[in-house]
Amino acid sequence: VRVALLSIGDELLFGEIVDTNAAFMASRFYDAGASVSRHLTVGDAPADIAGAIADLLLHSDIIVATGGLGPTEDDCTAEGAALAAGVFLESNPQALALTRDFFLRRGVPMHPANAKQAELPAGAEIIPNPNGTASGFKLKIGGASLYFLPGVPDEMASMFSATVLPVVLAATFGVTGTVTRVLKVFGLSEPKSEEAVRSSVSARAGLRIAYCVNFPEVQVKLRATAADFTSATAMVEEACAEARTGLADHLFAEGADTMESVVARLLRERHATISLAESCTGGLIAKRLTDLPGSSDYFLESVVSYSNESKTSLIGVPEGLIADLGAVSGAVAEKMAEGVRRLAGSTLSLAVTGIAGPAGGTNEKPVGTVFVALADGDGTEVKEFRFAGSRDRIRTITCFAALDMLRRRLLRR
Amino acid sequence: VRVALLSIGDELLFGEIVDTNAAFMASRFYDAGASVSRHLTVGDAPADIAGAIADLLLHSDIIVATGGLGPTEDDCTAEGAALAAGVFLESNPQALALTRDFFLRRGVPMHPANAKQAELPAGAEIIPNPNGTASGFKLKIGGASLYFLPGVPDEMASMFSATVLPVVLAATFGVTGTVTRVLKVFGLSEPKSEEAVRSSVSARAGLRIAYCVNFPEVQVKLRATAADFTSATAMVEEACAEARTGLADHLFAEGADTMESVVARLLRERHATISLAESCTGGLIAKRLTDLPGSSDYFLESVVSYSNESKTSLIGVPEGLIADLGAVSGAVAEKMAEGVRRLAGSTLSLAVTGIAGPAGGTNEKPVGTVFVALADGDGTEVKEFRFAGSRDRIRTITCFAALDMLRRRLLRR
Repeated sequence: VRVALLSIGDELLFGEIVDTNAAFMASRFYDAGASVSRHLTVGDAPADIAGAIADLLLHSDIIVATGGLGPTEDDCTAEGAALAAGVFLESNPQALALTRDFFLRRGVPMHPANAKQAELPAGAEIIPNPNGTASGFKLKIGGASLYFLPGVPDEMASMFSATVLPVVLAATFGVTGTVTRVLKVFGLSEPKSEEAVRSSVSARAGLRIAYCVNFPEVQVKLRATAADFTSATAMVEEACAEARTGLADHLFAEGADTMESVVARLLRERHATISLAESCTGGLIAKRLTDLPGSSDYFLESVVSYSNESKTSLIGVPEGLIADLGAVSGAVAEKMAEGVRRLAGSTLSLAVTGIAGPAGGTNEKPVGTVFVALADGDGTEVKEFRFAGSRDRIRTITCFAALDMLRRRLLRR
Repeated sequence: VRVALLSIGDELLFGEIVDTNAAFMASRFYDAGASVSRHLTVGDAPADIAGAIADLLLHSDIIVATGGLGPTEDDCTAEGAALAAGVFLESNPQALALTRDFFLRRGVPMHPANAKQAELPAGAEIIPNPNGTASGFKLKIGGASLYFLPGVPDEMASMFSATVLPVVLAATFGVTGTVTRVLKVFGLSEPKSEEAVRSSVSARAGLRIAYCVNFPEVQVKLRATAADFTSATAMVEEACAEARTGLADHLFAEGADTMESVVARLLRERHATISLAESCTGGLIAKRLTDLPGSSDYFLESVVSYSNESKTSLIGVPEGLIADLGAVSGAVAEKMAEGVRRLAGSTLSLAVTGIAGPAGGTNEKPVGTVFVALADGDGTEVKEFRFAGSRDRIRTITCFAALDMLRRRLLRR
């Protein structure tokens, strides 16, 4: 079975927005064992949409289209679909009722323009949209099934996951099972990660391993396809167990977990709290740790001490130390960590000082020089790093390196 | 002239990466007066690539393809292109020399696998790649011109801007000029922005105005096409002047400027410094302000006071005030701003306290309740907001609202 995606919208062709819908659907299909063979993008014109559908039908049995279902004049996906199917548009009573109901629930009257969203190709089956006014629909053309979803990512995602994906998979891939797992690695390059996995995971028929950099982490994707879901799950779990051995403590998270969520869980489990003193990361570590709901359970405070004065007055780094060794030094990082830990009364503290660039580097301390200190009362660990790349990359990887030091310490507690 | 884009790569079809290259090229073409009519994505298989080229040739005179020029086995764009053109692959001496030279400059020997990157369709014209080992190439098929670029975004972008865009525009759009300007708006919804622009900008033949939400800002894109570049520039400048009047102080930046860069410039011009006390934004405002190189000129320090204790001990918010009014209150925001300003000795200070959710809301103070205070020694201004949406959206818009208060204050200084 060949699956194709069709993205519809002038704003995509004009490059005003990046098409994240296509990647979302493609990865869901792929993880579940179906692969997309083509992805086409066209603008908001009925003839272009009909032409695109005709072209894709030469290469596919299932087409999932997104966009162009809105109430305004430029939205004409229904018209293009009707043209491709050789049918007329008609007002669909179910779609009209759903749109009316959507407004009713929000206590506002339906705008007359929204009635247009119920004008669908004759024979269309409705796909309900709980989060918006645009119903989706399914249409048959010859032997092919076409699904039309709105382009708003939230609405598309929930309709795709609830309706399209299960139906497509049940109809076409029910006989085999595919299961995908993601392992996230920090501190090993992509080739080194591949080496570590290759040397530990035995080859299996039906097992595919892909590597992908999501800076600064490397994602290892293990995908098993077998006669049924249970066998595929068993195969992928066995392979994951082997990969875990190979990746050892460079493996920091699996699946939907992130460096932040893993650190947060460890802090909670250890009943530990954290405070931060950030210089070159300028609040990024605090921001990451507080991205998570409920972070006030373990996150106490962060001092972003950008100026030397604030390092001295706020967190008590001796002035002489900065004068002698420079603000970017291991000794200053150590005093920052100890100072903020005392100030906050936290179990642990992290401090970062470095040169994120692009200016400010010297021969001795080039751009990318970073010191990270981790204090826990028993002692303070300081690490020196030399990172490369843009200011943004240096700040991002510094944040990761600091959280990874914290993760490793928490694992030992 | 019809332009089509072709993205090549299994990682795109599997949804492992989002295709930002297509949006980048589409927007450059669009801003310069050329529009992309189709965008197709296929995987790494010579027959699929050749088939995609054949299909696109039915709809376009110019094709810009990206991806599949690497040294590994799965990269087979050159083979697909040769198949589509009906020519053989041959080792291109210029491409080989360029790749060799790339390694030479980095002082490492060329890996034998990289020789494959010089195996190009007979008749291909080389497009040099200063940043990588994969040369691009141009190929003629019938009357159409095809450009092949590597998929690595940095490499693609510089080759596209230096070689492809000027050649395409010179060959095809030299007779008319198109100029685009972007105005960035905060504090007006998309429809309200449209209303403000419509009521102030006269309609002109050749002028197109588009609106696009880049949460939480609205971008107004004015694009003028005229007989030549000078007339187009004059037209777009006139329209911009009118739009500026209509948008008034909701217009916060133009072109490549951002809220942060505008605030940074104003701080520098006014010789002012800033300190922050952040609660619900957890370091996000500090992070944004320090994203910019040289931010130590105006950014002194930020205290992320997440716990009530840190609000009291670090920045001197009276304990009784928190007990009486709650940490999320205008009075606490005010004391936070004044406290951190005193501590840092800065010209201005911003403080934020609020409920980012998803939990923690009450009837009186629902999720999204945020207080922002701005102190400058003459007095402290406090604003209350009620934002809606996810934790991430509430934090993002809070950061914008705080920086916008600072921007407006600086404009009056």
